[in-house]
Amino acid sequence: MSGRPPVLSAQNVLDGLKALRERQPVGFSAFFSSQLAGVVTDPALMVLPFDDHMVHRGHGIFDTAGIVNGRIYDLESHLDRFERSAENSRLQLWGSREQMRECIIQTTAVSGVRDGSIRYWLSSGTGNLGLSPAPGAEPGFFVMIFGGLSYPDRFYEEGMKVMTTTYPIKPALYAVTKSTNYMPNTLMEMEAKEHGLDNGVFIDANGNIGEGSNMNCAFVSHDGVLRHPRFDQILTGCTIIRLLKLAEKLVHDGIIKSIDVADIPVAEAKACAEMMLIGSGISVVAVALKNGKKIGDGRPGKVSAALGALLKEDMRGGNDVLTDVPY
Amino acid sequence: MSGRPPVLSAQNVLDGLKALRERQPVGFSAFFSSQLAGVVTDPALMVLPFDDHMVHRGHGIFDTAGIVNGRIYDLESHLDRFERSAENSRLQLWGSREQMRECIIQTTAVSGVRDGSIRYWLSSGTGNLGLSPAPGAEPGFFVMIFGGLSYPDRFYEEGMKVMTTTYPIKPALYAVTKSTNYMPNTLMEMEAKEHGLDNGVFIDANGNIGEGSNMNCAFVSHDGVLRHPRFDQILTGCTIIRLLKLAEKLVHDGIIKSIDVADIPVAEAKACAEMMLIGSGISVVAVALKNGKKIGDGRPGKVSAALGALLKEDMRGGNDVLTDVPY
Repeated sequence: MSGRPPVLSAQNVLDGLKALRERQPVGFSAFFSSQLAGVVTDPALMVLPFDDHMVHRGHGIFDTAGIVNGRIYDLESHLDRFERSAENSRLQLWGSREQMRECIIQTTAVSGVRDGSIRYWLSSGTGNLGLSPAPGAEPGFFVMIFGGLSYPDRFYEEGMKVMTTTYPIKPALYAVTKSTNYMPNTLMEMEAKEHGLDNGVFIDANGNIGEGSNMNCAFVSHDGVLRHPRFDQILTGCTIIRLLKLAEKLVHDGIIKSIDVADIPVAEAKACAEMMLIGSGISVVAVALKNGKKIGDGRPGKVSAALGALLKEDMRGGNDVLTDVPY
Repeated sequence: MSGRPPVLSAQNVLDGLKALRERQPVGFSAFFSSQLAGVVTDPALMVLPFDDHMVHRGHGIFDTAGIVNGRIYDLESHLDRFERSAENSRLQLWGSREQMRECIIQTTAVSGVRDGSIRYWLSSGTGNLGLSPAPGAEPGFFVMIFGGLSYPDRFYEEGMKVMTTTYPIKPALYAVTKSTNYMPNTLMEMEAKEHGLDNGVFIDANGNIGEGSNMNCAFVSHDGVLRHPRFDQILTGCTIIRLLKLAEKLVHDGIIKSIDVADIPVAEAKACAEMMLIGSGISVVAVALKNGKKIGDGRPGKVSAALGALLKEDMRGGNDVLTDVPY
């Protein structure tokens, strides 16, 4: 570009947004915006005002829930966390929890998506480029329905390769809040990829294992204990919380000896028999290689596989954590 | 809202964006977007795709420069910092520095604004809801021209009231980068306002003075030393850097004894004769009250006033840091 940029009309803007999607197709099925007071299904129309404080100040939070076989998995836990994140972030909710839930379910119905992801956000709204919410700002609530982040089959067949990141972990208050301030998480993943690896792991200020970029980390010790870090300095993953409960069956079946949620010093993590990453998008993936060193025999382990199977069964089974969608 | 939300057409979206601006007018004069390949002057059209990673992952940086009397103040320093922020954030620039500079100047010209602010952003672009830049993503470059953040006259006449924030400072790497991950900065300002005050001050992990929400903090000791924290754990403010240089005149004139950039323990800050906040938007504002205790006699001090005058003169004077705008 050189010289004066053209001044655009409304039609030019619509054409520009459409052209962007033609150059780079995206996989979004439906987008609800409280600012637009409805749902759009054309990705070119999935926009928000630039001055929304989530855009330029990171004053926004989010959460993600899975759509499995036409039902939403564990939505209430994700809404619980969403409300906690809002409180930590001094964000006003958009209507009541019931209204947000209904909007999520109805947007899913409009999308027609039966296997994928729902991500939803709350922002402090538009109005200026300041820090505190602008005068007259209305909270923004947004829901995106999409096919889900796709992970390579290799992750599940061979296990992931991870490294301890060189990027500092967020202070605890920010780490336990699912805000859009995910620059550290992004940088960690980019650093790992630069090294030919798949992801990174944050270490906390005391030298204990933190979390992955958007996944929790669990370990199995050689004596069969399923170990997970405490949740006071990392995000409380809804999937790992559910899985720690489901894993009691593995104790009963003798596949693991016990479950221990406690600090995990890096040295102890290094000596594990199995390592895995857990999240609502990725489910359970074994880690085969960490910092260039094989975990176990360098193949996905049996506890990771058993936990993955438990989660899969829970996601599809007729239990109490599935929400019907009126497609 | 209850029941199924309406599915919107392009015209509905335009109408919705317009209605939002009618409910809450905004003061933006011109907005350039690389994604739209041009400038819009109607605030209803100042939008970006929701899936831009700056929106939902905070993978974006920004900087701000002032427009004073039809010229841009100290743009090169702000571009230097923008480039450093991009590097720290693993963000690809939009074209060359020259192209970005030209775009900033031309967008200012389109706006017609002769006294106000320019804020510009770089994002990793659109394409998915993942962490790393999406396949085929183009960096996003955005420029907003506006009247500037308005601060009450009281700040300048009576001094600001501040508190030590209870929110943790960001780890150094993130603090020195001017990213859109400003949730801590926002929370600090909101906390101060909740206490009937104007702003907060971050304290670093070693108990030293950090920075304000979007301003640097300087002090004057009773023996006449202008003191400022080192810049390794806080943002390098372009305005304070310029001012520390200009302040040599005050040493020469005997208004201050010397200038010292070093750690400032909180206890030493408490014992200061003057305190001030400095930024490109706010210029120099004296602090009258900190944590309920008067600074000096509780009135703006003479060094703050002298620094404010120096900055004002520099912003308007015919020196080497003003860029002409071809209105």
